Parts: sequence; structure tokens; C-alpha cells
Amino acid sequence: MSNGYDVIFIGAGPAGYVGAIRSAQLGMQVAVVDNFVFKDGKPALGGTCLNVGCIPSKALLDSSEQYHKVTEHLSAHGITARGVELNVEQMIARKDKVVKDLTGGIRQLFKANKIEWIHGHGKLVDNREVEVTNADGTTERYTAGSVVLAPGSCSIEIGSAPLDGDKIINSDQALDLTAVPPRLGVIGAGVIGLEMGSVWSRLGSEVVLLEAQDELLGPVDRQVVRTAQKAFKDQGLDIRLGCRVTGTEIGSGAEAAVTVNYEDKKGEQQLTVDKLIVAVGRRPNTDNLVSGDVDLLLDERGFINVDEHCRTNLPDVYAIGDVVRGPMLAHKGQEEGVMVAERIAGKAGHVNYETIPWVIYTDPEIAWVGRTEAQLKAAGVPFNIGTFPFAATGRARAMDHSTGMVKLLAHAESDRLLGAHIIGPQASELIAEAVVTMEFAGSAEDLARTMHAHPTLSEAVREAALAVGKRALHKAN
Amino acid sequence: MSNGYDVIFIGAGPAGYVGAIRSAQLGMQVAVVDNFVFKDGKPALGGTCLNVGCIPSKALLDSSEQYHKVTEHLSAHGITARGVELNVEQMIARKDKVVKDLTGGIRQLFKANKIEWIHGHGKLVDNREVEVTNADGTTERYTAGSVVLAPGSCSIEIGSAPLDGDKIINSDQALDLTAVPPRLGVIGAGVIGLEMGSVWSRLGSEVVLLEAQDELLGPVDRQVVRTAQKAFKDQGLDIRLGCRVTGTEIGSGAEAAVTVNYEDKKGEQQLTVDKLIVAVGRRPNTDNLVSGDVDLLLDERGFINVDEHCRTNLPDVYAIGDVVRGPMLAHKGQEEGVMVAERIAGKAGHVNYETIPWVIYTDPEIAWVGRTEAQLKAAGVPFNIGTFPFAATGRARAMDHSTGMVKLLAHAESDRLLGAHIIGPQASELIAEAVVTMEFAGSAEDLARTMHAHPTLSEAVREAALAVGKRALHKAN
Repeated sequence: MSNGYDVIFIGAGPAGYVGAIRSAQLGMQVAVVDNFVFKDGKPALGGTCLNVGCIPSKALLDSSEQYHKVTEHLSAHGITARGVELNVEQMIARKDKVVKDLTGGIRQLFKANKIEWIHGHGKLVDNREVEVTNADGTTERYTAGSVVLAPGSCSIEIGSAPLDGDKIINSDQALDLTAVPPRLGVIGAGVIGLEMGSVWSRLGSEVVLLEAQDELLGPVDRQVVRTAQKAFKDQGLDIRLGCRVTGTEIGSGAEAAVTVNYEDKKGEQQLTVDKLIVAVGRRPNTDNLVSGDVDLLLDERGFINVDEHCRTNLPDVYAIGDVVRGPMLAHKGQEEGVMVAERIAGKAGHVNYETIPWVIYTDPEIAWVGRTEAQLKAAGVPFNIGTFPFAATGRARAMDHSTGMVKLLAHAESDRLLGAHIIGPQASELIAEAVVTMEFAGSAEDLARTMHAHPTLSEAVREAALAVGKRALHKAN
Repeated sequence: MSNGYDVIFIGAGPAGYVGAIRSAQLGMQVAVVDNFVFKDGKPALGGTCLNVGCIPSKALLDSSEQYHKVTEHLSAHGITARGVELNVEQMIARKDKVVKDLTGGIRQLFKANKIEWIHGHGKLVDNREVEVTNADGTTERYTAGSVVLAPGSCSIEIGSAPLDGDKIINSDQALDLTAVPPRLGVIGAGVIGLEMGSVWSRLGSEVVLLEAQDELLGPVDRQVVRTAQKAFKDQGLDIRLGCRVTGTEIGSGAEAAVTVNYEDKKGEQQLTVDKLIVAVGRRPNTDNLVSGDVDLLLDERGFINVDEHCRTNLPDVYAIGDVVRGPMLAHKGQEEGVMVAERIAGKAGHVNYETIPWVIYTDPEIAWVGRTEAQLKAAGVPFNIGTFPFAATGRARAMDHSTGMVKLLAHAESDRLLGAHIIGPQASELIAEAVVTMEFAGSAEDLARTMHAHPTLSEAVREAALAVGKRALHKAN
């Protein structure tokens, strides 16, 4: 059976569903093919991000932060609480409700925008034809004027630590632990490893992260990382760098431990934990995405090859989100979704890849946009640096949350803002004004001359901008 | 005795101390005259803002929010805490420590910038001459190239509710209650009244606010105020509008109550409370600021008359901060301090009074910049509106803090951003990107095309910008 759409999206994650909504706004007939099934057995929109990624992890980060505050940080305020108890199942249930409310919201948006949701596995069988395999194995074919591939990514598995879904788990499964493991191991101290490690550490786990690289968070500003390392250490996160996992063994019985064998500079080491999360990265979901006779070009790393407008080598076939080059970030995928929708509609959609904000939701939060010192040095760009510590702002002091700083990099001649690196409270929100400034090709002086409300954390951004010109007001220059 | 400075500031609040620092950065010899004494009997820099205003109130707001969370909001996360106890004295002591750390920081900045701090009451006795009265009544005179008047403001007292410093207190004194009053009355439901009412309500007081105006927060966007009113009501704040206080009576004995007589539309009413805060506004500190033969021009409301560059009618005499026209906001005073310092140094300092952000630190927070619908209508400016509720953002949902919305107003023809009105979590920080956009004379489209990190609250700002063009992605348009 054939059914003609203007555009079919394969994948209902942030890239696909946002692209679909924008397409519908522009008057197109839209279908979205997706085969995600939530743990309750029901199909759900939103992909990894909403179901087992950004949203549930932030819900748990928030809950665990509340728990940590109650158990550790109230006494300074003159508040004492005895008999603090944690019901992990209830915490997980709240997280699931947040997820279901939001994925249900996408369902409503699809209805409001008359977007057809086709549940099943989508495969491109010709330039403009998609075959959907239903749960019962039957197939149907749909045609469209354009097809957008947005299948997302999945956790990388490694041979030295095969998942058993109970003792050795991936980041999706780490969102559904029903009790706090006394000892938790995490392979990989990247964004996901750090976020999951933080959650369970705050809830009481003794957490060890084994990172293969010799440096933590390689692409991040070094000063930010040093601040983060100190904070993580103070929180009890044991991050071990330069560790190559060679094998794992699971003991027998329900209470059995996991033994992790790894090598570091000193030689062979062993770690024993109750649960082990494998969080070594994600790979693009290109398996079974196109039929054998469709000649879709991938790049050398297995991502779908696209140009700056997310066009693949096949006419009328686009690819967006985690499956193409660039950071695996939900908002980057969303913007690509909007762009391809607008371009299919004959408009001038565009993504500015130079101003993509990044966030790591640890405590303190880490956020950045633009280039680092190391990148500017490598490119031979002359620059000035302005830094400002949150400890010198009244708001952070009043909040008892003054670890961290804002660091801005501006061109030495034009003063144009080239990068912003923030570690501290609300870094995820504070980065927005730096992104806006960079979108306007604004200077540090522009930010420095913009009035910032007192007392706010954003004053630290303005002070860092002043510091670029060696005239911060609330620190010695 | 005479001592020649390049510039003398009278007042060491945000306007004066920041102006002094900027003056010193520009190579001037600077003195600051201030007579504030902290409750420990020691002179302190920072004025009202740091000592008895913005900073201590935010410290208490934060502490009281922690208490409120523990007692009311943890169960949703699966956390139970029994035996929660509050030690008000310790809470106040933490607040005092935050204040002292920050005012001590200003002292260090003065030393680093070689700014002389002269403790005493400063009075302008001639264009370039300041007389300082020391604590012992002796006087000294100092001369300067320029004098900047930054004496700040103080709480307005009313005859119908004279302060006794124990039962009937002002907002400064409300920061130092040693116990939670079972029943608390507040005269005035402005920014200060609402913030203080929130603090003590969260700590357990039954709070009634008596507001003379028929509308709450008159200059604020009406939609924002309606959302706020509902939230305040849900929190148990009893805000009574159109109430004119006619008299107060204090009973006898330590446990005596305060009876407040007031009139509303229905006639004469009575309220009985244990403490009564008078928070009906602030007036400029112009008493005894100039000697009788100095002809400093005031405006009809008692503020010092200044031009757009804060020049008074007297040559080489400037006035900044709460004592001149414009909002009584610390950051507005700071910018004026920077401006006059730069102008005295022969530079082109300037304050953009069109882009001053405002914040009310209630829960939810309220922040805005630029013009309201009512102001645009009155001015005959055609505009489009874009709103977006926090309930439709994943971050707010994950935080369990989804009351409120972002509302943007843009010119109907140019799309230029004319106003931003936010009520919700972190509104105080989210307003910054709207201010930056307005400083660049940017459009709603500019904000809508700027990538915002997911999941953040700032996504609501971008969605509201998209909504101006009827293309919000996560709500029906």
C-alpha cells in the first residue's frame, strides 16, 4: 500500500519530531516513523532524549540534588532534619511521570499539527520510499516528496564489559535502578558517566569512574576542568584517568559483585562494585536504516555524510541529529530539523554551527559555547581572557553556591567574543546570553556595557566581560 | 584641614562604591565618605544593598526556600524527612556572615584600588568641598575636583504605624527577627513587602499584606501579576488590596499583639498580628546632605535634579543611585557610578535607561525589561506578543517548578524586541539574554534563531520568541 506525504521523518527524537512540527507549520503533510517502546510496553515519541536521555537524567539529577541538600547542606541555614529516608522507587516513578507527561505532550502536538505517527521500524528503500516494519513483522510502504533520516544514536557496547542488564548496564538502564548500589562503577567519565555518577553518588553510592583518556573532558577548557575535578573529588567521586578496562566478571547469586579488571600506568588493577555502568560513548543508529540497494554515503566514522544543509548524497533525502557530523546534542538536532523543514519548503533555513552551547549537568554545572584557549592558540588567533569567580558575586554567596567562574575569550584586536566557558551555579542558563552575543557577532565590550540585574549570577558574565578589558569592578585586575 | 582628591563620593552603596572603583581604575585619587554602621557597631561599606537590602534578603530567601522545600516539597521525590527543626538565630547568623564577607570584600577592593574610606556623615558645603562629621561630632573638610552624591534612600515611615523597633518594624529590622512570628502583618505589597512576606511565610508565619493600591504591582505586566497572585495565594500569602491603614495599637507586655486598623471598600477593618513590617516605599536620603547656602536643585518629588549624565545644577557635582530619578535599583546606581567616573575622566560614559532589568525575588521569581503591553498601547506602538509556559519545557518539569511563563513583546513592523516579562524559575537570570538582545536592538526573530541548550529554562525564552511569529514548536500556535 502506498500513501503520499510531503515529508517522512524516520525517528521521533528531538531532531525528527521538531522537524516534523516545523514541516507541518509550513503546510506540509507529514509522517513520522519511530519504533521506540517505553518500559511500560507502550510506544512513545521523543526518542532517547525524552525517554532515556536528557529529561529523565535531569529529573534524577534534581531529585538527587534535593536529597543531597537535605542530608548535607541544611545545617548552614539553621535547619536540621532527622530521619531522612529515600524511596528510590518513588524517585524513579516521579522521573517516569515527568517523561510520560512530556512524551504525551509531543503526542498532543502531533495531533494539533496533524502529523501522522507511524509506529514501527522505518527503512529507506528508495529515495522517496520508506518501508515500515510493524511489531508483528508485517511491512508497509509509504512514499514522500522528501525523506529525513533522524534515527539518533545508541550506547556503544564494549567486549570487555558485556551488558547483562542487571549487574552491568548501560546509561538507559542506569535510570531505572531500584535501589542505591553501595559500590557503583562507571566506565567512561564523559558527560553521561559524570551525570549518572553524580546522581548515584549523591544518593549514597561510592562511585568510581574509569576513564580511558589521560585527561578528563578533553575538549573542555582546562581551567574549567580543573575546577570541576576539585569539586567532583570533594563530592567523593573517584575519577581514575588512563584506565583501560580489560575484562569483567560477574559473581553468582543476586548479591554478587562485579569485578572489573583494568590497566593503568602502574599496571593491572582490579575494582569490585555492585553495579557497573558502561558509558563510553554513543554511535549513530545506521543499522538496518536503508535497504541494500540504496547507496547512502556514510563518512569514515559511520555517520551519514551530509552537507551544511543536511542533504545526503541521495536526492530529496536529508539526515539530521546524532546520525550526522557535529555534537550529539538534542538542540543541535532540533535546529537541523527546523532547517531541513524550511529548506524542503523552499525557505532559507540555516544552522550556525559556531554557536552551539554545550552543557554538562553536574554540580557545579558546566556550559560553554565557541572556542577554547587551546583551539584559538592552535588556530593562531590572538585573544584576551576575562575571568570572574562566582565567589565574588553576592547572589552566589547568598545561595551558598559559589564554586566556579565565568571565563570569556575575545579577539585581541576586534574584541569580538569568541568563546564563553562557565562552571558554576546555573551555568546552563547563563550561557544563553553569551550565545546571543556571539550570534550578534558582539564584543566583550557589548556584554560589559549591558546592564545586569543585581543580585544575579549573570553579573559574573558581565564582570568577566569587563575583565577582558582589565576593568572588572568586583575583583583586582 | 583640607585634602585634595580628584573625586569624592558621598555614600558607599552600590552607586558610590562602584563609581569609586571605576574612578580609581581611571587613575583618579578617590575618597568615599559613608557613615553606615552595621548592627555589630562596626562601620561597613556597601550601603543598604549589601548590609540591609538586596544581599541579606536574598540570603534569607534562599534559606527559607530550603526550609520550605524540606517541609513541603520532598515527598514528590521519594524523600521523607522527619523532625525538621529551624534555628532562626543560626539562619540570621548565616545571613550576617554572607553580608560581612561581602562588605569585607569591598573593603579589600578599596585597598587594592587605593580608595580612601572616610567614615562619617558627608555634607556638601561648597561645589568642591565636603564636610565630614565624625562619630564624636568633630568635623573635617575635604576638597575635590568633583563631588558625587550617592547617599541612597531609606524606608518611608508613616504616621499611622510608627515604628517601635520591636512590634512595628521596617524592612531593615525585618531581616533580624529572632523567632518566627505566628502572625505577621506587612503594610505594602510592593517588592520589599512581598519578599519579606515570602521569607517569613515559608518559615511558618501566617502573613497578611495590606496594600493601599487597588492593583498589585501596578507597573508590572498584568498577565505576570495574575500568575503571581495565584502562586502567592497558593503559598498562603493573604494579600489585601485597596487597604488604607488608619492606625495601629500595640498591646502591653512582651507577648503583646499589634492591632492594625484599616479601611477597605467595605469599611473599617481590623487585623491583629504579632509583628508588623512597614514597607510602603523608600525616599531619597537628601536630609542634611548639603549645607544651607548650597543651592542644589531637587525635583518635585524630592530627588536631586540631574540630566541624563547625572550632572546636578552645580558645576562638578553629580548625583547617582536612589537619590535621583529612575528606578531604585542597585544595578542602575552602579551603572550611573561607572558613567560619572568615566565622564569625570573625560570619557564617554553612558547609561541606557531603556534596558534596565527589574527583578522581584519571590517564588516564582519575576523579572522584566523594557515596556509592558499597557505602555505600548498608551504610546500607540503596534506590537506582537509571544508567550510560552514553563510547563511546556522539559527542564522546568524535571525540576518540578513549572509555574509561569515568558512573554515577549516585539514591534509589529520591525519585529524589534520591545519588552520581556518573565515569571518563573530563574527569571532573574533568564532576563539577561533579553536585555542583551535589546541592547543590540535585536528582533524576536534574532532570539528565535539563536540556539538554546536543551534542556534548559532558557528554551522558554526562545519559544516565546518563536511564538511572536506564531511558530512556537512546543505549543499550539
